This record gives sequence, C-alpha cells and structure tokens, in this order.
Amino acid sequence: MLAEIITIGDEILIGQIVDSNSAFIGKELNKIGIDVYQITSIQDDKQHILNALEEAKNRVDIVLITGGLGPTKDDITKHTICKFFDDTLVQDDKVLQHIEAIFAKYIQTPVTDINRMQALVPSTSVVLMNQYGTAPGMWFDKDETVFVSMPGVPFEMKNLMNDEVLPRLQERFDRPFIVHKTVLTYGVGESAIAKKIEQWEDNLPSFIKLAYLPNLGRVRLRLSARGTDEKLLLDTIEERIIGLKALIGDIIVGYEETESIEVLIGKILTSNGHFLAVAESCTGGKIAQSITSYPGTSSFFKGGAVTYATQSKSDLLGVPKETIEKFTVTSKEVAEAMALGVKSKFKSDYSIATTGNAGPTKGDGDVEVGTVFIAVATPERVFSEKFVFSNHRERTIGKAVNKSFELLLKELS
Amino acid sequence: MLAEIITIGDEILIGQIVDSNSAFIGKELNKIGIDVYQITSIQDDKQHILNALEEAKNRVDIVLITGGLGPTKDDITKHTICKFFDDTLVQDDKVLQHIEAIFAKYIQTPVTDINRMQALVPSTSVVLMNQYGTAPGMWFDKDETVFVSMPGVPFEMKNLMNDEVLPRLQERFDRPFIVHKTVLTYGVGESAIAKKIEQWEDNLPSFIKLAYLPNLGRVRLRLSARGTDEKLLLDTIEERIIGLKALIGDIIVGYEETESIEVLIGKILTSNGHFLAVAESCTGGKIAQSITSYPGTSSFFKGGAVTYATQSKSDLLGVPKETIEKFTVTSKEVAEAMALGVKSKFKSDYSIATTGNAGPTKGDGDVEVGTVFIAVATPERVFSEKFVFSNHRERTIGKAVNKSFELLLKELS
Repeated sequence: MLAEIITIGDEILIGQIVDSNSAFIGKELNKIGIDVYQITSIQDDKQHILNALEEAKNRVDIVLITGGLGPTKDDITKHTICKFFDDTLVQDDKVLQHIEAIFAKYIQTPVTDINRMQALVPSTSVVLMNQYGTAPGMWFDKDETVFVSMPGVPFEMKNLMNDEVLPRLQERFDRPFIVHKTVLTYGVGESAIAKKIEQWEDNLPSFIKLAYLPNLGRVRLRLSARGTDEKLLLDTIEERIIGLKALIGDIIVGYEETESIEVLIGKILTSNGHFLAVAESCTGGKIAQSITSYPGTSSFFKGGAVTYATQSKSDLLGVPKETIEKFTVTSKEVAEAMALGVKSKFKSDYSIATTGNAGPTKGDGDVEVGTVFIAVATPERVFSEKFVFSNHRERTIGKAVNKSFELLLKELS
Repeated sequence: MLAEIITIGDEILIGQIVDSNSAFIGKELNKIGIDVYQITSIQDDKQHILNALEEAKNRVDIVLITGGLGPTKDDITKHTICKFFDDTLVQDDKVLQHIEAIFAKYIQTPVTDINRMQALVPSTSVVLMNQYGTAPGMWFDKDETVFVSMPGVPFEMKNLMNDEVLPRLQERFDRPFIVHKTVLTYGVGESAIAKKIEQWEDNLPSFIKLAYLPNLGRVRLRLSARGTDEKLLLDTIEERIIGLKALIGDIIVGYEETESIEVLIGKILTSNGHFLAVAESCTGGKIAQSITSYPGTSSFFKGGAVTYATQSKSDLLGVPKETIEKFTVTSKEVAEAMALGVKSKFKSDYSIATTGNAGPTKGDGDVEVGTVFIAVATPERVFSEKFVFSNHRERTIGKAVNKSFELLLKELS
C-alpha cells in the first residue's frame, strides 16, 4: 500500500516556508502501515498540478494533497482538481453553514463572497468537514486510486487527517504492519558507532532496516521492520536491541518517538519528586522553550532566567560581581555560580546554566566564538564543562542545548 | 532556467525529520534567478533514485540532490548516482587527505575504513570540497543537464551551496531576474485583506504575482516579479506597494526577508538606546528564544525570566502573593505585575509578560485552556489584554508569541 504526498505552493519552492505538513502526514501514515513512496512539492500552476496528479496516480494507491485551498485568488488548486476529475463545482450547504458559523463566532465580520466560494466543491467528491477553518477537505476515488485534498494550514490539515482521513484510510485499505524503534545515542560519532556494531548490523534479518540519523552531537539509530505478523516484528526488534545494548549500552540514553530527551528527563524528575530550573545566557531561552514545548512540564519544571546582559547575572541570580570581574563572564566559575543561583532563586533541586558566545562576533566576554560553559547543579554538587562547538550561531545554540540535556541526564541516571 | 531538488532518505518519508534543506536551497536558487520547478523526496532505494534522476532530467536544467552521502551502510546514493552516469568510483586523494585532517583535528580517533570509502567518487565528477564534513559534494554534466550531489547534513550542505554550488551555477547559466518583496501584516484575516485590496490586486501587471501566506494571526503578502530588466521589476514593485500602503497601511508592520518582527523591534529599540526584558509563563521561554535566535541581540535585550511555577512569579519578579491570591495566577493583574517586575529586575525600558494556560489541561489557574494575558510595560505605562487563542498547546504558544511582538511593536511605532 503506497502513498504519495503532493504539497502545492510557490512559497514552498522559493523556500519562504518549510514544508512541515509532509513530515506530519508521513509519520501518521506510517503508524497505520501505509508507506509514503514519494513527496512531491510543486508550484501553484494548473498544468503542473495536472501532471503531478497523473504521475502520482501511476505510482501509488493513495494521493494526499495539501495547499492551495485558501479563500484568496492565488489558490487554483480546487479548480484544477475539479478539471482532473472532469467534474463541476457545486455548492455544499453544510459547508456554507459552517463558514457562516465560524464568521459569526470568531471573526465577527460579515461573510464575504470570497469566503462563500469556499463552499463550492466538485460534485463527485466526499466532503470532509474542516472544524477549524473555512476550506473543506475533499475525498475522491478514481480508477482504484484515492485522492484527498486538504488545506495547507498545518493546524487545519492535522485535524482533518486525524478526524477524517486516517479513519477512512484504515477502513478502506488492508495494511501490513510497520514497526519502528529509534535508539537515541549521545556523544559518539556516526562512523565510530558503525564500526562498533558492524557485525550486529550484518546479522540483522532482511525484514529489518537500520538507518543512522546524526544531528548536532547525537546519533539516532532507527530500526524499521515490516511484515504481516506484528508480534514477530516487535519481538525481533526487542531482541536485537538487547544485542545492541551489549555493544553500545554506555552511549544509549533513550528511545524515540515515545521518549525525547526532554520527556525522559521530565519523567525521572517527576518520579523522584524533584524540580529543575535553568539559567541561560547564550542559549537565550531555548532550553526552557524545549522543555515547555511538551505538556505536563509543571510537574518538574520551576522555570528559568534568561540572563543575557552581564549585569542581569548578578541582579537576578546573585552571581558575585567579583567572580565576573576575576574570571570574565564566559567562564567555568560564572556558569557554576549561575547554576547555584538559579537553583536557589527557584527553589529547585537541579539546575542547568549556560554562558558562552554563540557569535557571530565576540560579545561581553573575551572567548573564542562558539565557546560555551555548561554547568549542572544537583542536590549534592555543582560542576561544569567547557565546549567549543562551532562558529555558527544556530548550530552552537543547538549543540549547547543538546549537551546540557545530556549532562543532566547522566546525573539523573 | 528550471531546477529540481531531490532529497533522499527514508527518514523524510516516514516523517522522522522535516526536510528543511529544500527550503534553504529553494531560497538561494531563487535569489540568483533560478526557478525551482519541483521538490521530490524519495526513499533510500536504488531503483527509485534512478527513476527520480531520469524524470528530473526530462523536466529541468539543474538537479540538486541532498542526502545519502554519510559514512554508514544505509547510504546507497553514491553508488546509484555512479550507476546512473555509467561511471566507476575512484579514490580522490585530496578528499582522503581532508578526511584524515578532520579526524586528526576534531575527532581524535584513527580514520576507519568506512570513512576512507568516503574519498571514493565517480571518475567523471567534479569534486566539491566539503570544508565541514567528510562527504564531498559532486558535480556532473549529462546531456545539457547539471546534477549536483551534496550530503544531507544541513550545515555541510549549506556551506557547499554557498562556497561551491551557487558560484558555479551563476557562472554556468544565463538567468532572468526574480524579485520578491513580502509585506508583513498583523491582526486582520486573509479574506478581509483580500476584499480590501481586490481592485489593486486585479490591476497588478502580468509579470507580478501575489500570494497570501497566513500564519497564526499574521498574514504575509508576497509580491514576485520576474523579467530581464531588474530595475523595472524593483521600481514596479515599490510603486505598487505605495498603492497597497494607501489601502492597508494601518496593518502593515514591516517587510521580509530583511525584517522579521523581532529584528524590526530590535532596530527601533537599539536606535533609541532602549532595552527590553521579558517575563514568560505559558510561553515558556519562546519569546526570549525568538529574540535571541538573531545575532546582535545584546544591543537591546537584557534577558528574561521564565516563571513557570506560580511561586517563582513572586520569588523572581516580586509579584505580590496577595495579587495572585485575589485575582488568580492567570489574570490581567498578574500579567501587569510580571511586566513591571521584570522591567525593574532587569533595569530595562520596555517589557513583555505572558501568563496563561496553553493546555492541554487546566493548570494552577482556573481559566479556559488557551487563555493568555499579555502585558506590555513602557517607560510611561503598563497595559494588558486577554486573548483566547485555541485549545492546542503549540498553536496557543505560537499565537501568544506573535501577539506579544505585535503589541510591543505598536507601542514602539
């Protein structure tokens, strides 16, 4: 059972937005055993849309289309899809009522003719109601291939997928099982891992594939199994992971998707009744933001201080001015004082602190661009390490955040 | 002059990573007048890669490939590309020396055979040295089409694009001019804008296209012009934007890419010698992180407090306990006290504060999920507004961040 995702929009091709819709759709299809064969992003151009639909029809069983269903003139997708199915547009009264209700409740201006046109749908389509927006989804059957068109607004598309599209696909198609397990490792490079597990990898059964996914100081190892016997897949993967642990257990910190490192840290802290606080200079709030992007954070996270200006490190966290003068603001001593200060101010049990220079130019401190000191305070002690990550701002910040979580997790485990 | 981007990797198709490489490449090609016709993401599968290369060759003049050039076994791209060009792999001594140098300087372990194999390249390719990694880029000419293969690690790919690929493409191809200007608006919906500017839009010349890009309370309007006379394109766009300002000048807050709202705020504050601090509860550090993701932040940003736990709002920001008890933690009064507190603690001139409940469950406060109070303090006053954004955590946080910047910018302008 193969699917293709077609995302429509000039803004994707000129790089003004990153196509995150495809990743969401790919992940959800995969969970129900549908394999995405290809993702195709194309311009808002009639002929190009027609070509892409025709080519996809020859490649796959399911074609999911996003984008180009908004109320404004640059959207030609609906008319083109209608032409592809040799169909005509008709008004759907239920959609029109829904549009009028949305305007009355949230927008509080009269419904425009432009919005009323969103109630027009191809006569042969099954309308999928979009609870969160004015553009409906549309489901078509053509010569054994299913086509689904959804709006490109991520929030609306996600709800349509969950509420309408996925249940219908599950009902309509027989699907094999696909099982993934991703092993999260920290601190050792891709090729060094490959060398350590070479023999283990060579002995994997043919229905299991291994992929290496390196990113800013961590490597994820993804095992994917496919077959008709779900139990066999799950058992085989578990058994192989026991073998993997014997080889590289010291660098394995967790398993995705169920456990990102932030969630893993949260679980350990919560189960011990402990709390965390963070003090950030060069990471600028990204550690706090990474933690709070997951729900349920309040059971272990007190909060944090983004002490970007040197003075605020003393004012907010009580870092002694003499420590800053003696060792400079980007130093082991200041990082540790920040960690202790934030732990005390927030009355937490653990804390993380960062101070460094992400660049592109030298700041208040005097250290090389890319230098970051990371301190961790526990109920018993405080320690810190110096890193020189890179001369690229975004990369240095990302690496510092990952390394902070790694250092804390090591203390917790 | 048309290009296609092919990104290779199962991790893209199963949604484990979002393909941000394509957006970067699309943006850079666009700047030099090369139009991306299609982005195609495919599996790590030999036949699929061969098909995609062949199809792209029939569609476009330039094919840029990323992914599948790492050191480990799951990478089959290089061998497949070699087969596509009926070529054989030969060792490139310069690449081998580069790999050895990287290992000696950064990795400090012996070079493995796996890494040594990265110095093998198709004999007819032009090697593009990858300064930041061990996998080289490769440039091929076949029947008037240029193919370039690059590693999938974003950092390495970006540097190869900037240092090697873009200069060569500029030298090799005659290109038309493409000019974009994106108008950033806040506070009014897509269809209401469309109605206001309908006549203006109808009168745009045929070489200018308009696109609406709505996202969490802001709508970007992108004008794209294409032609051989760059001055004419620039002048026409400027002239049309004057007309647009006359219609919706009150909701235009800036122009991209040069000016994101964070950069715009930073410019105004810096030029006035003023500083900002932020106090975040439900936004969890995302306001600070959005500001500090741009360089040069220290000239206007003092820092912030992520007072996630109720107690920390009093301990860190001096919000009176009685205010919290009387009005609850999610209230206008607490938001304003947080704004004044953070302004005082950080000795800033302006501040933003957020308190609310992003969900998914009710927290310490007692308000509806999605409710956020945003306060702004200026040298003269403090004020706040209540919003009910949505019942989705990520969306509520995103909308609250955008709305915070909008409220501050209005005060600054």
